[in-house]
Amino acid sequence: MITSKSNPQLKLITALLKKRSTREEEHAFVCEGRKMFFEILTQNPSFLVKTYWSESGLASLSEAERELLAGCEFETVSDAVFDAVSETMSPQGVLAIVRMPEYDLRSMTGGKTAKLLLLESLRDPGNLGTILRTAEAAGMDGIILSADSVDVFNPKVVRSTMGAILRVPFCYVEDFPAVLSELKEQDVTLYAAHLQGSVPYTEPDYGERVGILIGNEANGLTDEVTALADVRIRIPMAVQAESLNAAVAAALLMYQVR
Amino acid sequence: MITSKSNPQLKLITALLKKRSTREEEHAFVCEGRKMFFEILTQNPSFLVKTYWSESGLASLSEAERELLAGCEFETVSDAVFDAVSETMSPQGVLAIVRMPEYDLRSMTGGKTAKLLLLESLRDPGNLGTILRTAEAAGMDGIILSADSVDVFNPKVVRSTMGAILRVPFCYVEDFPAVLSELKEQDVTLYAAHLQGSVPYTEPDYGERVGILIGNEANGLTDEVTALADVRIRIPMAVQAESLNAAVAAALLMYQVR
Repeated sequence: MITSKSNPQLKLITALLKKRSTREEEHAFVCEGRKMFFEILTQNPSFLVKTYWSESGLASLSEAERELLAGCEFETVSDAVFDAVSETMSPQGVLAIVRMPEYDLRSMTGGKTAKLLLLESLRDPGNLGTILRTAEAAGMDGIILSADSVDVFNPKVVRSTMGAILRVPFCYVEDFPAVLSELKEQDVTLYAAHLQGSVPYTEPDYGERVGILIGNEANGLTDEVTALADVRIRIPMAVQAESLNAAVAAALLMYQVR
Repeated sequence: MITSKSNPQLKLITALLKKRSTREEEHAFVCEGRKMFFEILTQNPSFLVKTYWSESGLASLSEAERELLAGCEFETVSDAVFDAVSETMSPQGVLAIVRMPEYDLRSMTGGKTAKLLLLESLRDPGNLGTILRTAEAAGMDGIILSADSVDVFNPKVVRSTMGAILRVPFCYVEDFPAVLSELKEQDVTLYAAHLQGSVPYTEPDYGERVGILIGNEANGLTDEVTALADVRIRIPMAVQAESLNAAVAAALLMYQVR
């Protein structure tokens, strides 16, 4: 049993939770919580690198969970040390180091349908998590993010995706405008959500090859990216309201595309 | 200038930020941030109880802001003390104690239209803030919350409403089911967002007197409340997806009602 915070394995977990650079070096991230752990164990067991249970987490397993866990290697960690390492306010007794899924751009656009969400400089972890979760529900084919967007493997994003992180393809790209131009050459029509958009979002017939552009929470889309859009769409709002939360705007548009 | 954290005014601010009970006793809450402060100063000045500027916040005012501020009484606070009191990671130099707006249920339902959002046991501050902001944009007439829902004057909610907190009517009610029954007697049709709903949310003609029921993030609506709904609606989802974030579900439904 691990009983010291200075245990090298726990130091790695802390670094994976806190640093994007460590996650990228290790090609791994940390998942917390019982529901997500058992989901990965049953659906994507090959992604599990290493699992850590707290003493009280282990003691509180149900019969069914105990059976699922048989054959899965794990380390036990004392409660005090486990709680100190955990990122969450109410730790649920299990932490797992998980291999990063890797997707490639072509797999998102190569099929007949290419329903894509295109995020420029999105910064809020909660928004990105909610967007991934909604993208899965709305049946999107993938998410493309500019390289300066928040890291999808940030623990706050991972938590708020509610498991969708291993099911929705996504891809960070260095040259976002160049990728948008490529998409257009592949017959993907680009719609920009824009406060000055001329077309109400409920009007277009979006079709099967469509990219929805959502910009930064504070500044929206850059002029360069807006200029690449085929259509600027607008979500109608009551006069006093200034804008919608980025995850809400994305949800309204993804469900419209659906 | 206030230079000590033990100044009684700052102790009151800290209590207003941290404790619902203090907010209720004082009928006041705290707004942080420059944008929101100037919005209140220009649109609802009678709600401002007391304003506090940090030294560097004052020094960085633009000419236009300085003019707006003329005639507004405020206290100056040293930067170190201001930052220690602030709830936010990057304080913006101004904090205000603001009087709570008070709405009454009848004002929401007495008009010809009564487009209401009905929240049962909503717990996440970020969700509630986003919902208020979206409700304003979608032109809802009001929000009714069960008494055990998160406090709308919680600083995290206040921040994420982006100012909508002083513009969207809302009301907490002790006996939520009883209020739902009253609404039905006033010709408000109740729609419950439910994972087992039988009617896709895009189908109903919602009309002008409509209540949308949204439940707790983890457990959904209680059976008692679900039974009071006239129609159970469902937001279609891809097979693997389990549910949508409460603020996203609320947004899709409010925009459908609109």
